[in-house]
Amino acid sequence: MGPAVGPAKQAAGAPHAVDRLAALLADDLAAVDAIIHQYMASPVGVIPNLAAHLIDAGGKRIRPLLTLAAARICGGGGDGARKLAAAVEFIHSATLLHDDVVDVSSMRRGKKAANVVWGNSASVLVGDFLFARSFNLMVETGDIQVLDILARAASVIAEGEVMQLAAANDAEQTRERYMAIIEAKTAALFAAAGKAGAVAAGRPGVEATALDTYGRELGLAFQLVDDALDYGGLAATMGKNAGDDFREGKVTLPVLIAREAGDESERAFWRRAMGGERDDDDFHRAVALVRRHDGIAKTLEAARAHAAHAKEALNALPANAYREALADLPDFVVDRAY
Amino acid sequence: MGPAVGPAKQAAGAPHAVDRLAALLADDLAAVDAIIHQYMASPVGVIPNLAAHLIDAGGKRIRPLLTLAAARICGGGGDGARKLAAAVEFIHSATLLHDDVVDVSSMRRGKKAANVVWGNSASVLVGDFLFARSFNLMVETGDIQVLDILARAASVIAEGEVMQLAAANDAEQTRERYMAIIEAKTAALFAAAGKAGAVAAGRPGVEATALDTYGRELGLAFQLVDDALDYGGLAATMGKNAGDDFREGKVTLPVLIAREAGDESERAFWRRAMGGERDDDDFHRAVALVRRHDGIAKTLEAARAHAAHAKEALNALPANAYREALADLPDFVVDRAY
Repeated sequence: MGPAVGPAKQAAGAPHAVDRLAALLADDLAAVDAIIHQYMASPVGVIPNLAAHLIDAGGKRIRPLLTLAAARICGGGGDGARKLAAAVEFIHSATLLHDDVVDVSSMRRGKKAANVVWGNSASVLVGDFLFARSFNLMVETGDIQVLDILARAASVIAEGEVMQLAAANDAEQTRERYMAIIEAKTAALFAAAGKAGAVAAGRPGVEATALDTYGRELGLAFQLVDDALDYGGLAATMGKNAGDDFREGKVTLPVLIAREAGDESERAFWRRAMGGERDDDDFHRAVALVRRHDGIAKTLEAARAHAAHAKEALNALPANAYREALADLPDFVVDRAY
Repeated sequence: MGPAVGPAKQAAGAPHAVDRLAALLADDLAAVDAIIHQYMASPVGVIPNLAAHLIDAGGKRIRPLLTLAAARICGGGGDGARKLAAAVEFIHSATLLHDDVVDVSSMRRGKKAANVVWGNSASVLVGDFLFARSFNLMVETGDIQVLDILARAASVIAEGEVMQLAAANDAEQTRERYMAIIEAKTAALFAAAGKAGAVAAGRPGVEATALDTYGRELGLAFQLVDDALDYGGLAATMGKNAGDDFREGKVTLPVLIAREAGDESERAFWRRAMGGERDDDDFHRAVALVRRHDGIAKTLEAARAHAAHAKEALNALPANAYREALADLPDFVVDRAY
């Protein structure tokens, strides 16, 4: 696929919106990948080996693409934006490594999770290394405003992760707390990735706010879809990693919807199962109850509303090929659940 | 104890050099504690509770004191230096939380380790939060040079921790690698704490270099003493936490000294025990062999040499009460092993 990008309308909902964005930013993205590999290098072999296992496993690089596109939309780009994009990917990677330790995950990006191969300790410490390297990269841009944005996001992410941990196996989870968790653990980095790109390009005002909103709404849509997919999405067949949230006692929107609409016996099931007493068979009942009350479809409706907000936010930005490409992403993010 | 401090000669070797430094910097230190508590606050209750468990457990605050003293020696101080000192303590605290998860520690500062009370996951994530907050604090000083110093130190610390993990149960550990590990995992933060104080006070040249050297040499002395204490120090009785390094397969200087001086059967013991096949009884033999070859005394000699280098480095600095107080610290650090 070449770098030419058609109008947003034609492309909306197309399955390859990320690929198209990556093609449009191919030079930037290649430079970011080179920076990533340069900054994850270390004479301590475990570090590049473990980091490469995760980072080279074929992640979609949505967050760094957002930073790069934001900078280009605002007429910026170049080395500073590329370093920031690499920093954003490092923050994300560090979070994934620590998440997998916390969630006792066995798979990530279709491979064994790093903690399974190298152990939890190495995953914790290499995560720390990547997180520190993200700040080395930000410092090199010399832009304290951008450091502020991403350091704040890093605090919010960690706070969201702790909030999620504290909310696990709490059958009394509320929608408000659920939304606060996903906004902190997921949407905050998308928001910062967009805003930082604009600020690095010298546009700290309207453009930065618009790209902050775009990122936040895209991130919310992204996480809502993830949470719908964990109950199988709309397809009849289960993805192989479905059920993780249920097993980990994470009370997500599909469950909240089913619980609110359920009768007394269903509520008793949710109280017991989400409260911590559950076995593998319970997941099948959970899926059935979620489907009975349209929990997946309604979660995806919520995702689509956030996707629409993301697209609207782009109206405040200069119209160019980068903005067009960003306009396609929200639908793509939601459509992967169908 | 009042803020007045006698000449270094009188005070050298006195047991309360840290207390005297703390008294001299009492106002600064109180402000730093307030900043620490302000920045570890969160509506997510686990965060302040877990952080306070560690941070309020009576650590000596040597690293933030070093930052504060460095700034004062250079004629600086004030809010910026205090925020940096708090940032340094947060980096240290985050490292301790992650260390205790990695080492499966049960005790820290005379209390149950946080991972025992709240679990490994909470320790990992609250560590991440404190680490991120340290960068929030640094950003607030607006000083990119200082951010550079501490972000680099954070990378080096994480690299050192991974190096130590990779070297565990490696009976072929060398002195070179041992020194590289302790310089990275411990001395780098002491060095950065000193240097950052000088740079924040507008002295990025000779003074910053001197305080970098002072911190690094003090940190090396500190870690060497720690490693000697883990084999009981010079006292006949074992401290209650002695043996941790042995049990964790960390090949430290006392072992390296004993191994180098030992006969073939002793080397065979070290190969087996440090290679991973060991039981609790083996620790008693390890202590006996370390003592037979003066492993403790020679480790403390090495510590004393680094302490002397630390004191020498102070000569490049303006003579004042803060410098006098720093001059007492290296001997204090070594003397705690006697």
